[in-house]
Amino acid sequence: MGAVKSKRVPRAVRERQMLDAAVLTFARRGYRAASMDEIAEVAGVSKPLVYLYLNSKEDLFSTVIRRESEALVAAVTAAVEPGGTADRQLWSGLEGFFAHTAEHPDGWAVLHQQARTHGEPFAHQVAAMRTEIVAFVTELLGAAAKEAGCVGELAEREVAGLAHALVGAAESLAEWANVRTDEGASGEREHPSAKDTAATMMNFAWTGLGRLTGGERWAPGGLAVDREGRSAARG
Amino acid sequence: MGAVKSKRVPRAVRERQMLDAAVLTFARRGYRAASMDEIAEVAGVSKPLVYLYLNSKEDLFSTVIRRESEALVAAVTAAVEPGGTADRQLWSGLEGFFAHTAEHPDGWAVLHQQARTHGEPFAHQVAAMRTEIVAFVTELLGAAAKEAGCVGELAEREVAGLAHALVGAAESLAEWANVRTDEGASGEREHPSAKDTAATMMNFAWTGLGRLTGGERWAPGGLAVDREGRSAARG
Repeated sequence: MGAVKSKRVPRAVRERQMLDAAVLTFARRGYRAASMDEIAEVAGVSKPLVYLYLNSKEDLFSTVIRRESEALVAAVTAAVEPGGTADRQLWSGLEGFFAHTAEHPDGWAVLHQQARTHGEPFAHQVAAMRTEIVAFVTELLGAAAKEAGCVGELAEREVAGLAHALVGAAESLAEWANVRTDEGASGEREHPSAKDTAATMMNFAWTGLGRLTGGERWAPGGLAVDREGRSAARG
Repeated sequence: MGAVKSKRVPRAVRERQMLDAAVLTFARRGYRAASMDEIAEVAGVSKPLVYLYLNSKEDLFSTVIRRESEALVAAVTAAVEPGGTADRQLWSGLEGFFAHTAEHPDGWAVLHQQARTHGEPFAHQVAAMRTEIVAFVTELLGAAAKEAGCVGELAEREVAGLAHALVGAAESLAEWANVRTDEGASGEREHPSAKDTAATMMNFAWTGLGRLTGGERWAPGGLAVDREGRSAARG
């Protein structure tokens, strides 16, 4: 440790800096091309310190996946408004998901692309997080179905299928929302806002394409708006 | 070639046998653990013949991904009933997708799991196929929106978002439908039928969770059925 020239910074803070640098580097370069040299440079520490704290590139990647997974699950579960109507709960959860992935595009790229692409151990880590989210959504949809009195119809099995469909749709939409390339003449990256993406998702999953092509839309007030914008909707 | 003991079988037939064996082995063992020895054995040919025809394990995997991608895209596009109503077209395309993935679970495992997990070149191949399917669905949804007269509302951008959501949902549902483990006491694997999975998907995407929790369902006749099963629906 004496050989490392660095200011006296608590270990936890140093580690966070390294993990932040690793997320950024893994997301932008890709796992294989990312080097420990670059990660150390971005973190503003020496490479030996990175090895001392986080052992190896594999371990660092694994630690990053764990941290980003936990942050995403925490963001989604915290966003859901407890005790709200089913659509309100779903809306708030989706908003949490799209807000978190939009605010942490590098973290999302690590989870959704890098972790799944570079071998089974990492892919399993991210699959475990996904299982947790699917279980959470299954519970939410199951409660909504029960509340609406359709226990017999939306059988447990179909609720599980619907939860998988919902999670797959949200993942795919988050990828699309975050990796879109420049379109505007201004040269700015024109990403849809997290609220817009969550609304697209609600229109898809809650309203359904059938009503949607008929001009109806879902709005945060819980009211579908028809083609002429009738029926007041507020957020 | 003289060293290889094998009956006179046309090259194309031999190659197909090798690719079939490779799909099965990659899906069940995983790309890394799959050996050329095992693939040759499953195909009933010598290992040198596999190398002679397909060069290397990497090339073989890449050829397998290409073949399975083309088969899946062909199955989906061929399944869509031309000239039908929007929901009918979507239903037929989804049925084609779920039927193909249910009939070829190993091919689907190669595309959806193996190809994405073992490095960027393979992941890019499968991403290219996905882009093709998303473009196809975008066109289908765009036509449906136009047909319903909501050109201004379902703007091009939202249609693209909805197509991504739909494809992500279908992928996730196909994974769930095919990897479910034993549940029944009989010890048989109890997979939902392709029709059931397609119906779950239509209930989700076409009917919407809002109507679904109210007891409505989508049915192939194009009519939603209410909780008491009113309004005739037929396939």
